[in-house]
Amino acid sequence: MTFWHFFFKNTRKKLLPQEIENIEPKETLLIKNSNDLNNIYITINKEINLYELEELCDSVGWVRRPIKKVKTALDNSFVTVCLLEKQKQRNLLIGFARATSDHSFNATIWDVVIHPNFQSKGLGKALMNELIKELRYKDISTITLFADPQVLNFYRTLGFMSDPDGVKGMFWYPL
Amino acid sequence: MTFWHFFFKNTRKKLLPQEIENIEPKETLLIKNSNDLNNIYITINKEINLYELEELCDSVGWVRRPIKKVKTALDNSFVTVCLLEKQKQRNLLIGFARATSDHSFNATIWDVVIHPNFQSKGLGKALMNELIKELRYKDISTITLFADPQVLNFYRTLGFMSDPDGVKGMFWYPL
Repeated sequence: MTFWHFFFKNTRKKLLPQEIENIEPKETLLIKNSNDLNNIYITINKEINLYELEELCDSVGWVRRPIKKVKTALDNSFVTVCLLEKQKQRNLLIGFARATSDHSFNATIWDVVIHPNFQSKGLGKALMNELIKELRYKDISTITLFADPQVLNFYRTLGFMSDPDGVKGMFWYPL
Repeated sequence: MTFWHFFFKNTRKKLLPQEIENIEPKETLLIKNSNDLNNIYITINKEINLYELEELCDSVGWVRRPIKKVKTALDNSFVTVCLLEKQKQRNLLIGFARATSDHSFNATIWDVVIHPNFQSKGLGKALMNELIKELRYKDISTITLFADPQVLNFYRTLGFMSDPDGVKGMFWYPL
């Protein structure tokens, strides 16, 4: 899939720390010169319609979460990435991911989702590559996530390693 | 170690979302009725002297990090916890941990450290229990971390599980 390669062309200079907080939201065409994916746009840190996000999460069968808590989570995410299909009447939210971070060393990616009608087209990979690119642009060196067993290989193809040097992901849940 | 039990007495009521952001920094005596640990205090979200933190990290041999980046990381951590030994001349920073979070659903714990002179006294466990208690108080339900192989059992005794349901911690590093 050579047409993804341009995602890693890092033409923008690295930001100084004081510049990082003041980045404008971005919206760009995801894939150029594609027959069937020529109206899909990616947005970074743009305002998100919470009901459209809920609809997207419903489409993949996720457990519903209180919308106020989702708003707080988005407000306190370092980067949010959306995929939009531009339609005549409206823009359809078809993909989403977000990352929490200390804005300095590390980031953790959560809630990666692609609408079932748009899966198996390379869009998840494109979304993740764009998120990684954005985090690297913001000088984050350790990008982490917690992967379900069925998506381990998906993340491996993106360059993620599980348990490097025996480091294990651990979870604490309330009883 | 029954004297740790009081850490889990959750006497404070849960906060409403709009109250969470405005919590006063706290400082409390860590252990009551102890012979050798009766002047150790725990602080939550109090201002941290960056040079004292660097000295603590040096004491356990961590790789040095640019102090400006450390400041940014602390400023953008959801919770920071310090252990201080109150001495006649000054307070000595002997323990530290912090957590990033979306302030709503999840938190990830980083940089857990106890000064070598104060290890094997149960202080790491006390520090972690206090951090977990604070995150639970702020209604965070998923608390995560990435553990080196030699501290897996330490975190297991605190109730952390590695790879629950096959969920794996994954890392992406720049080439």
